[in-house]
Amino acid sequence: MSAVAPGAARARVEAAYDRIAQVARPDVWITLRPREQALADADAVDARLAAGEDLPLAGTTLAVKDNVDVAGLPTTAACPSYATDPAGRPGLATATAPAVQALVDAGGVVLGKTNLDQFATGLVGTRSPYGAVEHAWLRGRVAGGSSSGSAVAVALGIADVGVGTDTAGSGRVPAAFHGLVGIKTTVGLVPTGGVVPACPSYDVVTTFTRDLATGVRATRLMVGAGQDDPRARAWPAEVRLALREEPVVAVPRAADLAPLEPGWRAAFDTAVDAVRRTGARVVEVDVSGMLAAARLLYDGAIVAERYAAVGDFLATGPADADPTVAGIILAGADVAAADYVLDRGRLLAARAAADAVLDGCDLLLLPTTTEHPTVAAVQAEPVEVNARLGTYTNFVNLLDLAAVAVPAGQAADGPFGVTLVARAFDDQLAVDLAHRLLGGTGAPPLLVDGGVELLVVGAHLRGQPLQGQLVDLGARFERTVTTSDAYRLVGLDTTPRKPGLVRVGPGGGAPIVGEVWRLSTGALGRFLAALPAPMQLGPVELGDGTWVTGFGCTAEAAGRGVDLTDAGGWVAALAALRA
Amino acid sequence: MSAVAPGAARARVEAAYDRIAQVARPDVWITLRPREQALADADAVDARLAAGEDLPLAGTTLAVKDNVDVAGLPTTAACPSYATDPAGRPGLATATAPAVQALVDAGGVVLGKTNLDQFATGLVGTRSPYGAVEHAWLRGRVAGGSSSGSAVAVALGIADVGVGTDTAGSGRVPAAFHGLVGIKTTVGLVPTGGVVPACPSYDVVTTFTRDLATGVRATRLMVGAGQDDPRARAWPAEVRLALREEPVVAVPRAADLAPLEPGWRAAFDTAVDAVRRTGARVVEVDVSGMLAAARLLYDGAIVAERYAAVGDFLATGPADADPTVAGIILAGADVAAADYVLDRGRLLAARAAADAVLDGCDLLLLPTTTEHPTVAAVQAEPVEVNARLGTYTNFVNLLDLAAVAVPAGQAADGPFGVTLVARAFDDQLAVDLAHRLLGGTGAPPLLVDGGVELLVVGAHLRGQPLQGQLVDLGARFERTVTTSDAYRLVGLDTTPRKPGLVRVGPGGGAPIVGEVWRLSTGALGRFLAALPAPMQLGPVELGDGTWVTGFGCTAEAAGRGVDLTDAGGWVAALAALRA
Repeated sequence: MSAVAPGAARARVEAAYDRIAQVARPDVWITLRPREQALADADAVDARLAAGEDLPLAGTTLAVKDNVDVAGLPTTAACPSYATDPAGRPGLATATAPAVQALVDAGGVVLGKTNLDQFATGLVGTRSPYGAVEHAWLRGRVAGGSSSGSAVAVALGIADVGVGTDTAGSGRVPAAFHGLVGIKTTVGLVPTGGVVPACPSYDVVTTFTRDLATGVRATRLMVGAGQDDPRARAWPAEVRLALREEPVVAVPRAADLAPLEPGWRAAFDTAVDAVRRTGARVVEVDVSGMLAAARLLYDGAIVAERYAAVGDFLATGPADADPTVAGIILAGADVAAADYVLDRGRLLAARAAADAVLDGCDLLLLPTTTEHPTVAAVQAEPVEVNARLGTYTNFVNLLDLAAVAVPAGQAADGPFGVTLVARAFDDQLAVDLAHRLLGGTGAPPLLVDGGVELLVVGAHLRGQPLQGQLVDLGARFERTVTTSDAYRLVGLDTTPRKPGLVRVGPGGGAPIVGEVWRLSTGALGRFLAALPAPMQLGPVELGDGTWVTGFGCTAEAAGRGVDLTDAGGWVAALAALRA
Repeated sequence: MSAVAPGAARARVEAAYDRIAQVARPDVWITLRPREQALADADAVDARLAAGEDLPLAGTTLAVKDNVDVAGLPTTAACPSYATDPAGRPGLATATAPAVQALVDAGGVVLGKTNLDQFATGLVGTRSPYGAVEHAWLRGRVAGGSSSGSAVAVALGIADVGVGTDTAGSGRVPAAFHGLVGIKTTVGLVPTGGVVPACPSYDVVTTFTRDLATGVRATRLMVGAGQDDPRARAWPAEVRLALREEPVVAVPRAADLAPLEPGWRAAFDTAVDAVRRTGARVVEVDVSGMLAAARLLYDGAIVAERYAAVGDFLATGPADADPTVAGIILAGADVAAADYVLDRGRLLAARAAADAVLDGCDLLLLPTTTEHPTVAAVQAEPVEVNARLGTYTNFVNLLDLAAVAVPAGQAADGPFGVTLVARAFDDQLAVDLAHRLLGGTGAPPLLVDGGVELLVVGAHLRGQPLQGQLVDLGARFERTVTTSDAYRLVGLDTTPRKPGLVRVGPGGGAPIVGEVWRLSTGALGRFLAALPAPMQLGPVELGDGTWVTGFGCTAEAAGRGVDLTDAGGWVAALAALRA
């Protein structure tokens, strides 16, 4: 990981600033750090690398949405007066948000703070006194928002990771417009400390990246940073770590796709075909209940969360408030708490209904958004166009779902994107399908930090009859290995036929081929509790001298078995038995 | 379980109605079922028993708080007009609440619907047009509420299980006044379908019983009934199933006990001594933050939940509305949603703070309430006295804690009670300490329906060096067993010294003594992942022919071991080795 050239971080930061100068897009930034400051950080990263530290994000350049704190910089949320202290001086954040600090600790270098729809209220990127953020290359079109600047900074090749936030789709819509990957984890996994709240119950800190692996690597670091956040949720003990090879993917019925512009509908159909080609079985479901729930975000009482966050400030009538944003948020002042309580109840019911709709499905595939408007069109109808853009994103956080937005070809003259939606904490399943859909080779990147390894050597190997037990437990194939030479393989008298791995001592056996899978501790417990005699599980020594939990069997069964050690593994032994 | 005499259920119901007639307490009931109706249900239970059904609650008599639906009976919530249909006819519930249905399915017989503080708003039991419910035997004193009638019906020996609801302490305060056990599980475990909401985010259906075992048996059945409830939460995969033998129990600092009447303070000190005598280590903690959070329930914006539930009805000004209750709930109309959102945020922060206060503690011991007022005192100061009674109960549901209220001696002329408070889903820990505190013999009743069994035969046995690993995982000792005679026991060369259990086939070994523990699947997975070589886990055959997951070891290690089979078990073998 750290096999990088001396000065590599500095070189990447130098290149970022060169690119900033080249593209001349001041609308992207609210606060751009002085080049020398960022370079000093890069030098510190290079020094840490030289000292032997393992920095998974060494030299990764970061563009941070300006509603997320970075120590020493103002946090305007695109409202300059919001960051002004009572004495009229710009207030500077004293600490970096834990989610961003995790990236910096891993070697990331912050370039600056990016423009956004004010107070993260919008999906357009035009609602800012710092100027409407235009699309990275389709000038005149919106960048999408609210995390507009972070997305454009990544799309233009300035930053490697754009840090955004997503309540209604702000981490997904700009990704769709720019052909980027946008990862919006289950609410609560990434800490929201140091973030100006939009709707505190539903806000998620997100990443934009040009490739999936970088996004997953950064997001995984952010997920681990939340210990002190009272809203934090951790991966559950039974978290699923892999999508099955032939998953069931739900897609909306034709009626639910009517909001798409015609060319966008065709692009979605193409994306569905692409999903099918990954091996998925596609089933149509009725998502109208989810789309209806989406309307609770702005048209219902939930907007009171926005008032709770920044309403008192906006009620003072700051001159630099965006009129559309202020109108939306100030309307939250008049919402009765009882109506909010009732809407929360409706959301719980909608969540249960969505769960029923998705019963039997691993994931839900959606178009990320409906169309790609011009800045002028948004300015003409600022609320209506914005609402259309959120058709397929607004409900996701409200219904406690996870989402990964990925590029999926072209629609008319620009990128088209789809979103893979997963149940709460099934984020890895969305990552896995994203990997396949993007044509990734090798193992999909691992978002979940956790789980334990299990060595299988017989009927649970890929292609063998019990592999499905591991798949059903959400286990993830990691690698093919061989044991040390301390083991003998014996054929047991079981149904289905299984081998037993018998430790006889160093040199007494032979390296036996097996597979290491990763699964949650809860899944391992369930697997063990259901294990039939004469199988046993315990530490097994691998050829590289490490130990992993793996299969064995009772001495009684082994004693009655047929020695297969010479085959070197169960699959070869089976072939020999058949021959 | 079903070894009951023919007609046993009928006899119990007959006795209940005889007792009802004897005590002449009409204030307890809002709707008492006709004797013949209940007897018909009892006959049906007797018939099911005779047909061989296993009915864990066969003939158990149930008194159901009248805010919980029972099919065919009105649900007034102590407001008769609330149960009246638009045509002026009494509305009858068409279905029984799932929590109660679970009790009926298990053989319980509903006697009737009980009086309560109207809309479950109160801790006194006096706020009802059906009359103030007096204490079961201390006439002139309040019964406590809001689940007043259900508690008195149990205290008077009429019903075996009183079904209550608890938002602010309604399932605990009446228990304290009557020397009953009141079980208030973690919010969400018992379904709230068919319950008139008080504060829907915080309502819990509870039980009152004269003994712990009956309460746990009934509550366990209710917990399993919630599959269709959108607010339902299940036991997590890592649920703890047992309290350690020497737990750390937190108690409030002296300053936090100031609200207690003097005689009540002395009674609490006595209860703390009793907890110490169970083997617990008692530590003082600062619970002032929790007590402050309690005030958010009525003095803050959370009261809007009550308005959301029944405010529209009360706003019509029904003549039979209790003026105190109506005053409290209608005040919720004016709460701004933004203030509610901010209070919810404060509660999240308070929950995190409470978690920090309880760090290192297994449970929190509290006085259940502060004093035992007269009906007259409550009527003179209906809000103030009520607020004092909730000092130690109001915050529990708000901070996502579980509670078991138990009798703890006398204070002045009446019963005194304490509450064992546990973290969310640590309900079993509170049950375990309740069992010890009440002088229970044998194993504490098991509230959690789940977990898997693990056989240990060596260093994890009770009193052996690794028992603590099981305790730390929340494992629960179930029983001492012997294996079948298919096993030999060998002493291994490990640190600490461990035996290996080696299956050699029927008759080839001897019955080996072991212990079966129960632990969650998540805990079993973690245990296996941490297991050192040469130990293994897999199915082991017991002397009764059943199989359980248990310890084995590799053939290599067993082959180098010393045969100890003749000792019949590890403890005996160790003694022999020492001799």
